Amino acid sequence: MTKERLYLFDTTLRDGAQTNGINFSVEDKIVISKILDELGVDYVEGGYPGANPTDDRFFEKKRTEKATFTAFGMTKRAGRSVANDPGVQGLINSSADAICYVAKSWDYHVKVALGCTNEENLEGIADSVKAAIAAGKEAMVDCEHFFDGYKANRDYALSCAKTAYEAGARWVVLCDTNGGTLPHEVYEIVKDVTSVVPGNNLGIHAHNDTEQAVANSLAAVRGGVRQIQGTLNGIGERCGNANMISLIPTLKLKPEFSDHLEIGVSDEQLSRLTSVSRNFDELLNQAPNRHLPYVGQSAFATKAGIHASAILKDPATYEHVAPEAIGNRRRVLVSDQAGLSNLLDELARMGIKADKKDPRVASLLGVIKEREATGYAYEGAGASLELLARRHLGEVPEYFKVESFRVGVERRFNARGEIVTMSEAVVKIEIDGEVRMSVAEGQGPVNALDIALRKDLGKLQDKIKNLELVDYKVRILNGGTSAITRVLIESRDGQGNRWFTVGVSENIVDASFQALVDSVTYKLLKNGATV
Amino acid sequence: MTKERLYLFDTTLRDGAQTNGINFSVEDKIVISKILDELGVDYVEGGYPGANPTDDRFFEKKRTEKATFTAFGMTKRAGRSVANDPGVQGLINSSADAICYVAKSWDYHVKVALGCTNEENLEGIADSVKAAIAAGKEAMVDCEHFFDGYKANRDYALSCAKTAYEAGARWVVLCDTNGGTLPHEVYEIVKDVTSVVPGNNLGIHAHNDTEQAVANSLAAVRGGVRQIQGTLNGIGERCGNANMISLIPTLKLKPEFSDHLEIGVSDEQLSRLTSVSRNFDELLNQAPNRHLPYVGQSAFATKAGIHASAILKDPATYEHVAPEAIGNRRRVLVSDQAGLSNLLDELARMGIKADKKDPRVASLLGVIKEREATGYAYEGAGASLELLARRHLGEVPEYFKVESFRVGVERRFNARGEIVTMSEAVVKIEIDGEVRMSVAEGQGPVNALDIALRKDLGKLQDKIKNLELVDYKVRILNGGTSAITRVLIESRDGQGNRWFTVGVSENIVDASFQALVDSVTYKLLKNGATV
Repeated sequence: MTKERLYLFDTTLRDGAQTNGINFSVEDKIVISKILDELGVDYVEGGYPGANPTDDRFFEKKRTEKATFTAFGMTKRAGRSVANDPGVQGLINSSADAICYVAKSWDYHVKVALGCTNEENLEGIADSVKAAIAAGKEAMVDCEHFFDGYKANRDYALSCAKTAYEAGARWVVLCDTNGGTLPHEVYEIVKDVTSVVPGNNLGIHAHNDTEQAVANSLAAVRGGVRQIQGTLNGIGERCGNANMISLIPTLKLKPEFSDHLEIGVSDEQLSRLTSVSRNFDELLNQAPNRHLPYVGQSAFATKAGIHASAILKDPATYEHVAPEAIGNRRRVLVSDQAGLSNLLDELARMGIKADKKDPRVASLLGVIKEREATGYAYEGAGASLELLARRHLGEVPEYFKVESFRVGVERRFNARGEIVTMSEAVVKIEIDGEVRMSVAEGQGPVNALDIALRKDLGKLQDKIKNLELVDYKVRILNGGTSAITRVLIESRDGQGNRWFTVGVSENIVDASFQALVDSVTYKLLKNGATV
Repeated sequence: MTKERLYLFDTTLRDGAQTNGINFSVEDKIVISKILDELGVDYVEGGYPGANPTDDRFFEKKRTEKATFTAFGMTKRAGRSVANDPGVQGLINSSADAICYVAKSWDYHVKVALGCTNEENLEGIADSVKAAIAAGKEAMVDCEHFFDGYKANRDYALSCAKTAYEAGARWVVLCDTNGGTLPHEVYEIVKDVTSVVPGNNLGIHAHNDTEQAVANSLAAVRGGVRQIQGTLNGIGERCGNANMISLIPTLKLKPEFSDHLEIGVSDEQLSRLTSVSRNFDELLNQAPNRHLPYVGQSAFATKAGIHASAILKDPATYEHVAPEAIGNRRRVLVSDQAGLSNLLDELARMGIKADKKDPRVASLLGVIKEREATGYAYEGAGASLELLARRHLGEVPEYFKVESFRVGVERRFNARGEIVTMSEAVVKIEIDGEVRMSVAEGQGPVNALDIALRKDLGKLQDKIKNLELVDYKVRILNGGTSAITRVLIESRDGQGNRWFTVGVSENIVDASFQALVDSVTYKLLKNGATV
């Protein structure tokens, strides 16, 4: 059966750039457009040339190889010709392959925001579309507030869509600008619009204000549209746009869609989706949300003991799709609630071969549970778990021994009468029978300890080169400053490796130091240090 | 028109406890059940008594006042009677008002995971339900894998639902255990199930694996179910459960649902939803996601641009619901007016009368914004905000002046060869022109500082009697140990008062000390201490 083509239109660089807290540089935009191009989306909307210097520079040249490079902007204003509208001329003279015009389709906004007549607005749509086509570009029209506009004045909303289509727009995109439309409404309204514009010329642009941007997009596809707009990881104004990263696997892997629709993303490209999502977060300098559908670190993780043993018998019946398809992996978590089979699975992943009848495995599980009862949390600290497991099974060398440490924090007036807070740490370790003492100042006690600990490991020093702390999290487990403190530390090296360690103590400094020691030890182990 | 009742079933403490990275203590569960009870949900599923010590302790007594306190567990095993099934007996003997049994409804899992016959499974459902009812408890059955089971063997899935209903279960809950079912499938399958079990006895339990848990839940309601299961902020195994925080406003505010359905959450309770969501994140010690639908800090924020001026003309046409309804607020970055009226509200709440024309109020707003830009978060630290405000308006005496402090943490071998970690703090303050030095040991640096600071306030000592630290939270704002640290401290006295203070510094000890000083100062102010 020949499948119908469904087009993906990415607006990460345009609507995504409206996200509160995100500011793309030109260089960011160049990197992201490459990521999108390689992912196989059909359109990359790069921004709004004329609106700001970043977008002007970005549109100086074409930034995609395969995807249609698209510029966003407004239709011509009332009372002037296209030739005299600097906004439209800016779009036409840009390096874009396609122009996506935003046009009002709610009569109320035509009056209040544009201050022109309904007819002038239609004329603006038609003339702008024709100008883009005359300039050799593909034209499309984002019908702003389409669904609210349709509810307020169905005829006018439809006439905006129809005008764009009849003027030659390749796509008429129905935008749920305020994000409050519900999926069944989207479905019914799209159905109605197809009586005026064929589905193969309709697109959907959904926002997540009721947490249903993905559902709204898919409802529109079921209603007939053949273009979906969305963004990487669902970034975008307010609550974000439809999440392309969730849409793609559903469209590729769910027979409801994949049986009759085809998108431009191949199986191979799909298998890179997890890293696309995480690399994008890296680029934004934000921690990936591990609960993201399909690509999150926990998306195929099971903690429940009652499920875990059955999962190992037949994963397919516990997973709605195979994690490998999107480059993710199954994880069975070792925790308070889990059993022996979880642990064996986790050990196998660490490359530790263990027999389930080996009594040391059962006793390791006992140790983990005991430690978790005192506050350790190993599911978020894989490196500490691996060290614990390898030590229990007798494999980790004692690279160094901490004899003692001390750290002091002092706040006082300095010689110039300013209040200053100083932190200084001293760490005394023994390596190869030799005692080494290091001292360091830091911005806080943990920073000082971290620097002092890594300052002089003697012959092992080159094995921890580039080790760096990325994140540091503290959780107080029972409340109050004298309660148990759990510290989670994320570290990385220069080779793209990241690992997590944990420390627990009544004393926050002590807990931090444990996690620091685990981090350094893990790095030494991975780098094959020998004693 | 009489509206039909739709019931909210919260499983934050059961399915939410399966979240990777979340480990609730008994104390956490007690606080959360109170939050849920006050929010107006109908059922609070507290956990799985018998599965772990935390849940055993939590179910020792009833933890809700209004909501039905519900225990989760498995139906009886094949080959034994209910009376001889310790799992079922544990549920029956718990303090729960209701029991939610999980039962297989996919024949494949009956065979593979349970290893019994289809008939034995049905018998287990019926007997378990009857036993709960005989014990005076409300019974319900979670049909695990219902949708996948229905697709594989419709008749068997339906007979599980029917058996539960006919045995007397108040609710038969259709679970999308693997989370891969799509909204229109949910709708159609629910429709079919209503031919066997009335909609008023059906529930939906959806997961977010395709980012459609909310849409699936609402599709099920449209199909006829009258109970929705979900969790606070959508936590839960893998990608999470249906997000109760998104469902509630949609059900309350969208005419499609609110015209004919009624939930147990009042308008007043709805207006506290934003703070419920944020307080829950605080409790989990995680940064609230500012893009959350309805309650996120950015949910009603618009970056100044093409929308900005129109929004000021008529906000309603740019917002799908009014932010005030859920206790959130509009953020239009072109105007400070909203900020000022918020601050006046806040001051009034503290009992501070201020005129909006008083230039000190505007400058206070500026100071707050500046401090928030450096990392302070006054939303969660009312006592620190009140001190800042009263100081700015010139009202807080300087009860004491901190000259200096120092704290040392040392880990070493003691005389008996044991490793010990010691913390000692020295605080030097001036009261009434007299310098006082105090020294104290503590379980960690902050505990030592806290004790030393409160040890000798001279004539003010009796004013801080019973002051106690309840909770201490640390958040690293930029990642890494040398980043900005924010400390939130919760304090209480013997009279049932609780207050929150904040400190921010590059140095965790310094930040903690700021929050401690604010806590003591606030207490002195409230107790009417005079200099």
